[in-house]
Amino acid sequence: MRRYAAEFVGTFFLIFTIGITVTSANALAPIAIGVVLMAMVYAGGHVSGAHFNPAVTVAALVRGAVSPGTAAGYVVVQVLGGVVAAGTARLVLRGAKPEALTFTGREFAVAFAAEALFTFALAYVVLNVATSRSHPDNSFYGLAIGGTVLAGAVTVGGISGGAFNPAVAIGAAAMGLISWSVIWVHLLAEILAGALAGAVFLALNPAERSPSAVAG
Amino acid sequence: MRRYAAEFVGTFFLIFTIGITVTSANALAPIAIGVVLMAMVYAGGHVSGAHFNPAVTVAALVRGAVSPGTAAGYVVVQVLGGVVAAGTARLVLRGAKPEALTFTGREFAVAFAAEALFTFALAYVVLNVATSRSHPDNSFYGLAIGGTVLAGAVTVGGISGGAFNPAVAIGAAAMGLISWSVIWVHLLAEILAGALAGAVFLALNPAERSPSAVAG
Amino acid sequence: MRRYAAEFVGTFFLIFTIGITVTSANALAPIAIGVVLMAMVYAGGHVSGAHFNPAVTVAALVRGAVSPGTAAGYVVVQVLGGVVAAGTARLVLRGAKPEALTFTGREFAVAFAAEALFTFALAYVVLNVATSRSHPDNSFYGLAIGGTVLAGAVTVGGISGGAFNPAVAIGAAAMGLISWSVIWVHLLAEILAGALAGAVFLALNPAERSPSAVAG
Amino acid sequence: MRRYAAEFVGTFFLIFTIGITVTSANALAPIAIGVVLMAMVYAGGHVSGAHFNPAVTVAALVRGAVSPGTAAGYVVVQVLGGVVAAGTARLVLRGAKPEALTFTGREFAVAFAAEALFTFALAYVVLNVATSRSHPDNSFYGLAIGGTVLAGAVTVGGISGGAFNPAVAIGAAAMGLISWSVIWVHLLAEILAGALAGAVFLALNPAERSPSAVAG
Repeated sequence: MRRYAAEFVGTFFLIFTIGITVTSANALAPIAIGVVLMAMVYAGGHVSGAHFNPAVTVAALVRGAVSPGTAAGYVVVQVLGGVVAAGTARLVLRGAKPEALTFTGREFAVAFAAEALFTFALAYVVLNVATSRSHPDNSFYGLAIGGTVLAGAVTVGGISGGAFNPAVAIGAAAMGLISWSVIWVHLLAEILAGALAGAVFLALNPAERSPSAVAG
Repeated sequence: MRRYAAEFVGTFFLIFTIGITVTSANALAPIAIGVVLMAMVYAGGHVSGAHFNPAVTVAALVRGAVSPGTAAGYVVVQVLGGVVAAGTARLVLRGAKPEALTFTGREFAVAFAAEALFTFALAYVVLNVATSRSHPDNSFYGLAIGGTVLAGAVTVGGISGGAFNPAVAIGAAAMGLISWSVIWVHLLAEILAGALAGAVFLALNPAERSPSAVAG
Repeated sequence: MRRYAAEFVGTFFLIFTIGITVTSANALAPIAIGVVLMAMVYAGGHVSGAHFNPAVTVAALVRGAVSPGTAAGYVVVQVLGGVVAAGTARLVLRGAKPEALTFTGREFAVAFAAEALFTFALAYVVLNVATSRSHPDNSFYGLAIGGTVLAGAVTVGGISGGAFNPAVAIGAAAMGLISWSVIWVHLLAEILAGALAGAVFLALNPAERSPSAVAG
Repeated sequence: MRRYAAEFVGTFFLIFTIGITVTSANALAPIAIGVVLMAMVYAGGHVSGAHFNPAVTVAALVRGAVSPGTAAGYVVVQVLGGVVAAGTARLVLRGAKPEALTFTGREFAVAFAAEALFTFALAYVVLNVATSRSHPDNSFYGLAIGGTVLAGAVTVGGISGGAFNPAVAIGAAAMGLISWSVIWVHLLAEILAGALAGAVFLALNPAERSPSAVAG
């Protein structure tokens, strides 16, 4: 129970921050987004492992750091957190509404690549900093995870939306930031990239293949 | 004695930084504010627990990390630090004076929600990173706490003022940044959110219900 | 094998981020670049030592933290990562193309000095935070390394391009950000500065002259 | 010998970064300055204690963390690093020259207060994060120290110049950023604030009054 609550809280604040800062086109939006994720990872990591992202949960599942049942529960709670955050952000911002991001022609492939690349980077970072036995008590995991999202949002935010997270993509669509008609690009790219990161982690770290002692 | 001094110093520099950077509409204001809080948390944490915020002290009180007597002393010193910082900032900035933030109609509810949400996030982060037995010697607590305020200031600074802290709200009113007539919104939302965070922390971490060994 | 893969991944994301953010003249480009490097250093440090930079590998070689054979392999993989990242960034950004940075007259000497100074700073920081026996389990090494590149990019990015890394210089030339005709300035300055940093580290830390136990 | 070299390197890069970014009015200047200081503190802390600032050395002297002889040597090397950095920055930027900051009337008192306040904050942070026995192996000391300078530079950079460091003030004057005729304001405010921070630290931490084991 408590870990689902931690996942809800973390995902809610991530997507609430995204909703408000992106809708209002704040120049510091990527910094706020990366930093709130960092803070929530540090706050929730000891409880739930601090995924806040179905693609990360898929990566953790492939890597063996979370059971299938827990993973399913996490994804439900993360999407719920995203939808509630979207609704709250819309209430706060009533009136303000940007044009929804959409893609045509070649933009589909570019957006797919951008989301896949940075979601891979994010899941690769998470698995290495938060589930590896090499540095069990490090203090940098939240910084690395939040930093990856900050960098990705600056780099490809204007190209693909910079979600790297199916719960964010759904929340963004619910807030009118991304068109529902193209959101399958995000979901597909992100889930595949998360699974790939899990497989790459296991291939590169054969000693980690036995079941993990990591929370989750 | 020494812990009240540490609370005074930390709250003073937080609110002095807010006063100058917000009055002068500095584009990096939220970064300076979050970062000075981070630095003061690292400097004062080992002495006072580094609350610098009556809402955090309320959360720590509910959570059992501070005694009622110490909590009362902390709140007095924090508000004093805020008022002295406001006076100092006004001396430094003599002449420059922005229009005080005020609310009408629906804005009251939105500001209440914005302050309550991010104050909850802040107190939730503080309790998890600085008072949990899960990671007693971590080096990330100041980063998580300062980061939450940075993200909150970017996200809802333009909506509610982004105080998340009754001492900041009072200091901001004393500097003319927030209208005295609406400051009860901040105080009420922030105190309630701090108390709620304390209750949520205990509900989610039943093992932490016995008295805490944490400073304060 | 696995450490070459980690070097490829880290260098790829560093240079992909540089390519997109610099080409699109993003105001937060130096922050994204420093932060993605930080994240990749934390993700890959336990596998490869996280050089992602031939100048750092040269510094590590001089300092005795990596064998000549491994160093040669690292450089090949780093340059490959840079070229693949450059190709990927050009596909993503088809059309957008800035004017390539070039130098004339006195600018050659200034660019040489700028690249040499900050590459020295970077390699000096890496050797002290990631290979010194004084703090073997610290959590700050990625922050210090990414921070140096962030600061260098802000400071001399407009003067020399701010590569501090031969793989970045080659990737930047492949993306049309730096003219191929002046890239020898970068390569020469960076390699010399890396070697100098290795020598300075050994001179200042005589106790570290015996073979290092550090990964790589 | 090696600790004087570490002080020279750290102070050089701090003041070189200040010189270039402030002269070119870079919007990210305070971030670059705080972050390069952070990186240099992490790189040099284990060698020299990473003062890079005569006001910090005075604070450390009062607190008993450095001997008078070493302190004198540090100050000489820090000022030398500042002057060499200023000369190097002027060579790099030949031509570009901003108007030197100066003060008239009431501005003297305001600048004195601004420099004294943030230099006190800086030295107070340094003593608490880097010389206290409460957290001997923490990984946050550079973050706290660099963060204080970042916040101070954003907050009062436009009011007093934001030096908080006599070596920076002298280097800034040598680069034409601050008028030589007003620099005594900086030197006086900074040295007094450093000494005060040392005394406050000892008053608040009586258990630390016996000689420190900290480097330096």
